[in-house]
Amino acid sequence: MPDQIFPYKQLFAFAKNIFQKIGCSDLDADTATKALLSADLRGIDSHGIARLSGYVRLWEAKRVNAKPEIKIIHQTPSTGVVDGDKGLGLVVAPFSMQLAIDKAKQAGTGWVSVQNSNHFGIAAHHAMMALQHDMIGIVMTNASSTVAPTFSVDRMLGTNPICVVAPAGEEPPFVADLATTTAANGKLENLQRKNLPAPVGWVQDAEGSNSTDVNELKKGGALLPLGGDREHGSHKGYALGAVVDIFSALLSGANYAPWVPPFPAYLPMPAEQPGKGIGHFFGAMRIDAFRPAEDFKKHMDKWIRGFRSAKTIKGHERVLIPGDPEREMEEKYSKEGLPLLDIVVKDLTDLGKRFEIPFN
Amino acid sequence: MPDQIFPYKQLFAFAKNIFQKIGCSDLDADTATKALLSADLRGIDSHGIARLSGYVRLWEAKRVNAKPEIKIIHQTPSTGVVDGDKGLGLVVAPFSMQLAIDKAKQAGTGWVSVQNSNHFGIAAHHAMMALQHDMIGIVMTNASSTVAPTFSVDRMLGTNPICVVAPAGEEPPFVADLATTTAANGKLENLQRKNLPAPVGWVQDAEGSNSTDVNELKKGGALLPLGGDREHGSHKGYALGAVVDIFSALLSGANYAPWVPPFPAYLPMPAEQPGKGIGHFFGAMRIDAFRPAEDFKKHMDKWIRGFRSAKTIKGHERVLIPGDPEREMEEKYSKEGLPLLDIVVKDLTDLGKRFEIPFN
Repeated sequence: MPDQIFPYKQLFAFAKNIFQKIGCSDLDADTATKALLSADLRGIDSHGIARLSGYVRLWEAKRVNAKPEIKIIHQTPSTGVVDGDKGLGLVVAPFSMQLAIDKAKQAGTGWVSVQNSNHFGIAAHHAMMALQHDMIGIVMTNASSTVAPTFSVDRMLGTNPICVVAPAGEEPPFVADLATTTAANGKLENLQRKNLPAPVGWVQDAEGSNSTDVNELKKGGALLPLGGDREHGSHKGYALGAVVDIFSALLSGANYAPWVPPFPAYLPMPAEQPGKGIGHFFGAMRIDAFRPAEDFKKHMDKWIRGFRSAKTIKGHERVLIPGDPEREMEEKYSKEGLPLLDIVVKDLTDLGKRFEIPFN
Repeated sequence: MPDQIFPYKQLFAFAKNIFQKIGCSDLDADTATKALLSADLRGIDSHGIARLSGYVRLWEAKRVNAKPEIKIIHQTPSTGVVDGDKGLGLVVAPFSMQLAIDKAKQAGTGWVSVQNSNHFGIAAHHAMMALQHDMIGIVMTNASSTVAPTFSVDRMLGTNPICVVAPAGEEPPFVADLATTTAANGKLENLQRKNLPAPVGWVQDAEGSNSTDVNELKKGGALLPLGGDREHGSHKGYALGAVVDIFSALLSGANYAPWVPPFPAYLPMPAEQPGKGIGHFFGAMRIDAFRPAEDFKKHMDKWIRGFRSAKTIKGHERVLIPGDPEREMEEKYSKEGLPLLDIVVKDLTDLGKRFEIPFN
């Protein structure tokens, strides 16, 4: 359980310093740290500073290039393909989202598919770049295969998240960021730490049967697509995860399906690589390419207030708008500091010793 | 249960004739009939000719305009907004998808949001227009509210489907078309006809409790978002349905959330109308705006074959690719004719009598 609280500034300085130590420029280290810590701030701590040493291990394994030459290798007025040059996804993603935004300024919308990248933290951080431009932001990424499609024993897809953000007027923005599985891997890890079983519908065992064992992934089991089983629409979660794979990797030339490289550097690479690195997809739609932004935002406010005032099921205080829980976390953690698990503190302390940067 | 089989040609001639009788031009009647019957051919009979009399009732209620002047009311190089002029969605949708395709030819991608429309049948029919141009097709629509978001008793969203299609090379195309609910309303209607209970996770009662009563919607209950409950990710299905509403209606100026007009003409209109008609969203992405179409299709073939050859769970013959079941239905029904339920045959016979067109 979390038992130590750290100010954002302290974690920021530490992580940025580490990124610089592995060779990132000042600007890239800054960009990467902001992206990384946005996960902690928003309460998605599985994707935050707890992964810093994982990124360093990828660099050691020469799978991450700290000085990438990120290139636009193809483009049209509304599209672009980016080669991330094995850079940190935390740096490649903001570059690519900015390209989508720039395209949208000219053509109304911008769509960028990315090859040869690495993990980019949380999708919402990048998608939310669109908000200040009164644009809708869309971000997807593929990931190494942990998910079995409906009727499959084999793992064929990653947790492949979809993120869509839209600005509102007086209300906070709409921010939906969801793994296309019943539960993200981070939630399973939380249960592992607490030694609790998983609900039926989250994982299957190596034979494809229902399981509540949170360690099933280590034994040849798999995460389940959103829906859980066929009767509850797992073929839909599978289809959505597949769409993410197609947009992120088939359009860009990245690896896909079971051939996406894993995040942990100690895991073997897939035997075959039909593309380069992992793939992402970024979209930006200028609201006023459709209707005046003020009109849209006025109606978004009405939409949001309609949902907020819906009658709730007994025992539930309110209907949440996508993005509410994470925004509330961010408000709290920005003020109070970020809680880190002992195991993460130890990992960061070790990492700091190695690079001669005291963590605490 | 279905007990009469009709050749496609017979149903086509009848439906087209009816559309002409209510005032559609020859071309519009042709377009509408193709769209309508594509549902029957693909085995989605809830959205096919069984709804013909429903469309006629909307015309009688002056909610459908048989001679619409469909207009592009705003555009940029990659976007457009269409006013459907209360036309049949079956006609407005192909117009709008064609506009998206035309935009994509010029700008790389095309994105069209539509207001003032009506139900358009199945999304896949329209999305698949993109395939012959080597484009990815994307189609969404909102619908009247039957779905309760997580923790809500009130119905706030429609079944709001998302459809994404992508071409392959030697393999058939990828066609994902999914309601953002655990189960589409049509599946519930099938159980009603058979007097069977619904699985837990499909519907809730008027208090928001789990229910297996297939008639729950008539008693103030609601369909559940994909995921079913919070523990199994219903907030994700809710977020996806919300994205469909935002793209289809908030961008275009159509009605949204609980204010979307219902399909059955006998149901009262929502008390308030913040927009016009129902909303749709259409997207087309030219593959070669990202990479050569041949490369993409070669990798799609590899992707599809990878999934087809995945090891299956005991008792399941194969892992399906999105679009497989519907394509197989279409092959069968095109050859053998389309099965219609007695109740549908009677409804069409009555409709035919009224317009002096013998059905059978």
